[in-house]
Amino acid sequence: MKKTFLSLIVLMAAAVQLQAIDYTKYVNPFIGTQTDETGALSGSTFPGPTMPQGMVQLAPETEQYVTWDPCCGYDFNKDSIFGFTHTHLSGTGCTDLIDISLMPSVRKVSPAELKKGIFAQTYKHAEESATPGFYMVKLQNEDILVNLSATVHAGIHKYTFPKSAAQQTVILDLDRMTWRGDAYYAGRRAYQIIQSQMRVVDDHTIEGFRVLTGWAKLRKVYFRAEFSKPFTDRLLMDGGRSVGKSDVMNGRALRAALEFSNQDSRDLMVKVAISAVDNNGARKNMKAEAQSWDFNYYVKAAHDAWEKELARIDIEGTDAQKTIFYTGLYHVLMQPNTMSDVDGRYMDTNFEIKQMPQGQAYHSTFSLWDTFRAAHPLYTLLCPDVAAQFVRDMILHHQTYGYLPIWDLWGQDNYCMIGNHAIPVLADAILAEIPGVDAEAAYKAMYESSTRTHTNSPFEVWEQYGYMPQDLQGTSVSITLEQAFDDWCVAAVAKKLGKQADYERFLKRSEFYRNLWDPSIGFFRPRDSKGNFIEKFDPLSYEEPCFIEGNAWQYMWFVPQNPKGLIELLGGEKNFIKKLDENFTLTATSGEVNGNASGFVGQYAHGNEPSHHTAYLYNFAGQPWRGSAEYTIGTPLFQKATLHLAGGKDFTILAPRKSDKAIYVKGVKLNGQKVTDWTLTHQQLMAGGTLQFQMSEKK
Amino acid sequence: MKKTFLSLIVLMAAAVQLQAIDYTKYVNPFIGTQTDETGALSGSTFPGPTMPQGMVQLAPETEQYVTWDPCCGYDFNKDSIFGFTHTHLSGTGCTDLIDISLMPSVRKVSPAELKKGIFAQTYKHAEESATPGFYMVKLQNEDILVNLSATVHAGIHKYTFPKSAAQQTVILDLDRMTWRGDAYYAGRRAYQIIQSQMRVVDDHTIEGFRVLTGWAKLRKVYFRAEFSKPFTDRLLMDGGRSVGKSDVMNGRALRAALEFSNQDSRDLMVKVAISAVDNNGARKNMKAEAQSWDFNYYVKAAHDAWEKELARIDIEGTDAQKTIFYTGLYHVLMQPNTMSDVDGRYMDTNFEIKQMPQGQAYHSTFSLWDTFRAAHPLYTLLCPDVAAQFVRDMILHHQTYGYLPIWDLWGQDNYCMIGNHAIPVLADAILAEIPGVDAEAAYKAMYESSTRTHTNSPFEVWEQYGYMPQDLQGTSVSITLEQAFDDWCVAAVAKKLGKQADYERFLKRSEFYRNLWDPSIGFFRPRDSKGNFIEKFDPLSYEEPCFIEGNAWQYMWFVPQNPKGLIELLGGEKNFIKKLDENFTLTATSGEVNGNASGFVGQYAHGNEPSHHTAYLYNFAGQPWRGSAEYTIGTPLFQKATLHLAGGKDFTILAPRKSDKAIYVKGVKLNGQKVTDWTLTHQQLMAGGTLQFQMSEKK
Repeated sequence: MKKTFLSLIVLMAAAVQLQAIDYTKYVNPFIGTQTDETGALSGSTFPGPTMPQGMVQLAPETEQYVTWDPCCGYDFNKDSIFGFTHTHLSGTGCTDLIDISLMPSVRKVSPAELKKGIFAQTYKHAEESATPGFYMVKLQNEDILVNLSATVHAGIHKYTFPKSAAQQTVILDLDRMTWRGDAYYAGRRAYQIIQSQMRVVDDHTIEGFRVLTGWAKLRKVYFRAEFSKPFTDRLLMDGGRSVGKSDVMNGRALRAALEFSNQDSRDLMVKVAISAVDNNGARKNMKAEAQSWDFNYYVKAAHDAWEKELARIDIEGTDAQKTIFYTGLYHVLMQPNTMSDVDGRYMDTNFEIKQMPQGQAYHSTFSLWDTFRAAHPLYTLLCPDVAAQFVRDMILHHQTYGYLPIWDLWGQDNYCMIGNHAIPVLADAILAEIPGVDAEAAYKAMYESSTRTHTNSPFEVWEQYGYMPQDLQGTSVSITLEQAFDDWCVAAVAKKLGKQADYERFLKRSEFYRNLWDPSIGFFRPRDSKGNFIEKFDPLSYEEPCFIEGNAWQYMWFVPQNPKGLIELLGGEKNFIKKLDENFTLTATSGEVNGNASGFVGQYAHGNEPSHHTAYLYNFAGQPWRGSAEYTIGTPLFQKATLHLAGGKDFTILAPRKSDKAIYVKGVKLNGQKVTDWTLTHQQLMAGGTLQFQMSEKK
Repeated sequence: MKKTFLSLIVLMAAAVQLQAIDYTKYVNPFIGTQTDETGALSGSTFPGPTMPQGMVQLAPETEQYVTWDPCCGYDFNKDSIFGFTHTHLSGTGCTDLIDISLMPSVRKVSPAELKKGIFAQTYKHAEESATPGFYMVKLQNEDILVNLSATVHAGIHKYTFPKSAAQQTVILDLDRMTWRGDAYYAGRRAYQIIQSQMRVVDDHTIEGFRVLTGWAKLRKVYFRAEFSKPFTDRLLMDGGRSVGKSDVMNGRALRAALEFSNQDSRDLMVKVAISAVDNNGARKNMKAEAQSWDFNYYVKAAHDAWEKELARIDIEGTDAQKTIFYTGLYHVLMQPNTMSDVDGRYMDTNFEIKQMPQGQAYHSTFSLWDTFRAAHPLYTLLCPDVAAQFVRDMILHHQTYGYLPIWDLWGQDNYCMIGNHAIPVLADAILAEIPGVDAEAAYKAMYESSTRTHTNSPFEVWEQYGYMPQDLQGTSVSITLEQAFDDWCVAAVAKKLGKQADYERFLKRSEFYRNLWDPSIGFFRPRDSKGNFIEKFDPLSYEEPCFIEGNAWQYMWFVPQNPKGLIELLGGEKNFIKKLDENFTLTATSGEVNGNASGFVGQYAHGNEPSHHTAYLYNFAGQPWRGSAEYTIGTPLFQKATLHLAGGKDFTILAPRKSDKAIYVKGVKLNGQKVTDWTLTHQQLMAGGTLQFQMSEKK
């Protein structure tokens, strides 16, 4: 989807492409930005600039109001841009953030227009471009060129206006993108601004904040915006009413039209630093990261930061393959987000201001039902130092909240989805022995998160019944399967730490999935608190009373902690393989398919989380139950991939093939030794070396 | 209304009444607690204990849900108590606060009962008693005696259970008293809990918080509750669902039933400290103020604090007169409320945590449309040190908010009512030259509050038209009259500080009331932005488009800054007196009378603010326009009153009369010198001395 806006990108490209290898050129920030007519949810990614784990993620909004899809506010299919806002979620199925909107214009804005608040302009993809840390678009109606970049805490805007323009204008809107009666959210708790402020600090600086309640229960977003030119005039409106010459206004619907001279035709730059703590935090963030008025300085700094991140892996493949690969790596490393200010202060789960130790940052956006499967294990492998920070931040969350996050947004739990999947992340970190993890504190958090009843986790019920009865807990089959896995993770860590009683307790709980197995139909099936299987049952149905974002076919395979146990339940290896084959071939549907599920291969939904591990289960037919911190081997896509590990060593994966049809793995050798069980330990990987695949066109 | 619960109060009375003079015995905390069948709003006072300017104001709730009247949650007419909560507004016409409910019981509470959450018990006024800092009631259904006291930041509970009770139980409810579809508030912004937490710290301590949005846009109320006995059992529920043995829960509808042994029949004491900053603030407040487990210690401390406050004035009169007088003094000194913790931290208007200088407290609850008329001038006179603190706190409010508070609740402006009446309070403090006021900072706040357009204060409109046109600003007549007065206050201070240009600008604005005078009908009458008087006009009507909580009759008299100007408008002294007489005799009504107005004498509504000064206008017939910081002399109620002034001097007012009919003032002498103009300056008062009235039965 990426288009290069050649006539303008040349200078920029020259500045950023001096290095020998440029990994960032393989990143296409537009991947995932397009909604899908099939009804499946879009990738909900945004094309705008961000630093790795940036707090500010600055992007164009193609939606007038916040919508269900895309949640990030940018849809490649749309042809208008309404503004450029500083915070976004990437890849989620629910929305929030989208703070502090700026939109350039050449017009003298009337009070009636500012009250209406819509300043959309059309754009074309041919005049749009993005690389990591850089975004560019031409706004067609008024011929304004917008360049964006970002630091961790600040958005950097550069607007080039036509020489003929009578003036330069920027609309600053603190009310944009709040809910406006979207049918999906009707009846839900309102997404609303509690209070906001704009203050004209001097003739080129505005400070303020907006405080909101929404998907994150309470967000305080303070900002400081510095403009490269003095205001020549300004119109400030509170709730659609001008406040005249006031240099400060407070309210719930604040907008400003700021005017600047275009006499010298010079570009207008705007730097917007934000903080989740206070105005002083925004000032400090600006001072530490965004003193320069050289736009290219920021583009280069962001480019270099991404180059360093992406260089962790080398692959050999086609440009198209590399683009998919490095864009995926880019998306996985832009979150979780930094939540603390440069001085280390942040707002904890109890809405108190806390201080991180010198030089450390606090992170949020832990979408754990989604990320425990692949993103976090990748962090553990690629950047164990960063992975250890995430573990520390989740432990801090636990210390004030009482249990680990389910879905941590802006430092608060929104309880989206099910399970307690911070636990496998912490378990992975402990079992992989990554440096900087306090194993005892982590275990305490895991233990308390598995014993303190909370939303969707009634542990008294769990231990009393040995499963989640559907009449006592919704989505009971999904929770039973996923909780059993989390319990196994607690057991594995308890064993490692020598806590024998805990080990036995949680190992027992990890086998509770068996209690929902209905051998008469060969599916996990909901039961009530009397022990009866629920009568109405359709393994193809996506109705959510008993399952979540999946059906009985997809959830059948969720026993990652004990594939052997699952094989037994299915009647041995032969029947297991047969059922697994059927899973990939049965195309029948029943009723409405959940919008999150997509990329179907039979019942297997490649596009949604519950299926992610399913294909790897073929490995386990014939395999004993294995210890953790292990990696299961699949089919390599690339003929050569090199992981540059944290310890300075390389781990190289070679899979030379004579043709594209050579997709079958005949054998694998680690440092010349044959690998017989299709698994590698974390320690084997981190020691560096070479993994050599023998590929074939034949099974 | 006060009843003495003799059999139980004796010991207490012995403890607190050792001093020679006990002013607190003249305080009846039940005055103002009874709703009125006539439709007029009740006093909305509460009978529970508080320290002067206490943050905690602990009182019984007779309402199942928050209601419009009484706003404080206690109605003397009701016969049930639903709980005892820690924060209340006193005397307001709109509600908020009512945080952290405790209710004792002798029952084993089931999950179904706790989910329902109603544990009301009947009570009788014969078994209820209150003095400053102390409240006692017998809960009849379960024969439980409740004793309450308070420190500045903590509520102190003592529950005496019957010996026969199987157990002692306390219901802790963080969800009580939030809005439940009260018709008055239908369609208004929801009063809702954003998030709350309960955490069992040890076997006799619970900490937590609730964060809300309501009349105050954002309130964070942290608490620490310490019980004098260990829990024997407990039931914690989140949204009506038990969390089992969890010792922490997070949610929006949290309740706990805490059980204690009754084997020794010992009283259960509970101390609840709160903070508007964080959990650590609540801990510090507890440690500083409420370490003792001796209930009487708190009662004596509160009594002594009130005794010191009330002793500022001695009067001679009947017991009934003294009760009315000292109860009024008690009510006026319980607010504004302390908002900072003992360590001086508080949340500012921008929701940031700030620090007061060592030993200083930050205050809120500035209901200025109500209090600028009488309460604040009284603070200036009686306790200038405290008045100076309030001025400082309003200046702090201005520094982050941009303008002075209109109605400052929990440190935030709710913009209730009109005008900018912090300005007369600051002007009074500057002109009276009370110590500790930074006149330049105060003037800056006054100036910016009079020039920065904000809600109900469009100053560009004001200066362009010379009045508030009704089509551009609602309640335009009331605002025009009140703003002109505020402007005069700015002018007076500008003059004192030598700011001649400002003086002239604001003096001009202070005469804008003239622009709404319609000589053809002899009333202030709304005009539109074209200059036309509004056709539809009924001087008796309380409809609020043009006036607020008053009609054209009542607002006619609101030119306190220039009575001579008003007299001129009304056609000279004779016509003025005639119209004033008519004001006190015309009983006609038109349509619905505003519920805030009551105590009618003709059109004069003694029970509402706009009329408060009207009777004193008789003094000005024949009087020139006077300088400020002056007191206008009325008719003394008491034959002797002594003000014990801050400087250590006394000011004594003598008005001996031979009979109750001697209500006419024939003459007044200050220190033997005749007072000819019916006014005294603040400086004359503060110098001490004697004011001698000559009273007569004849006019």
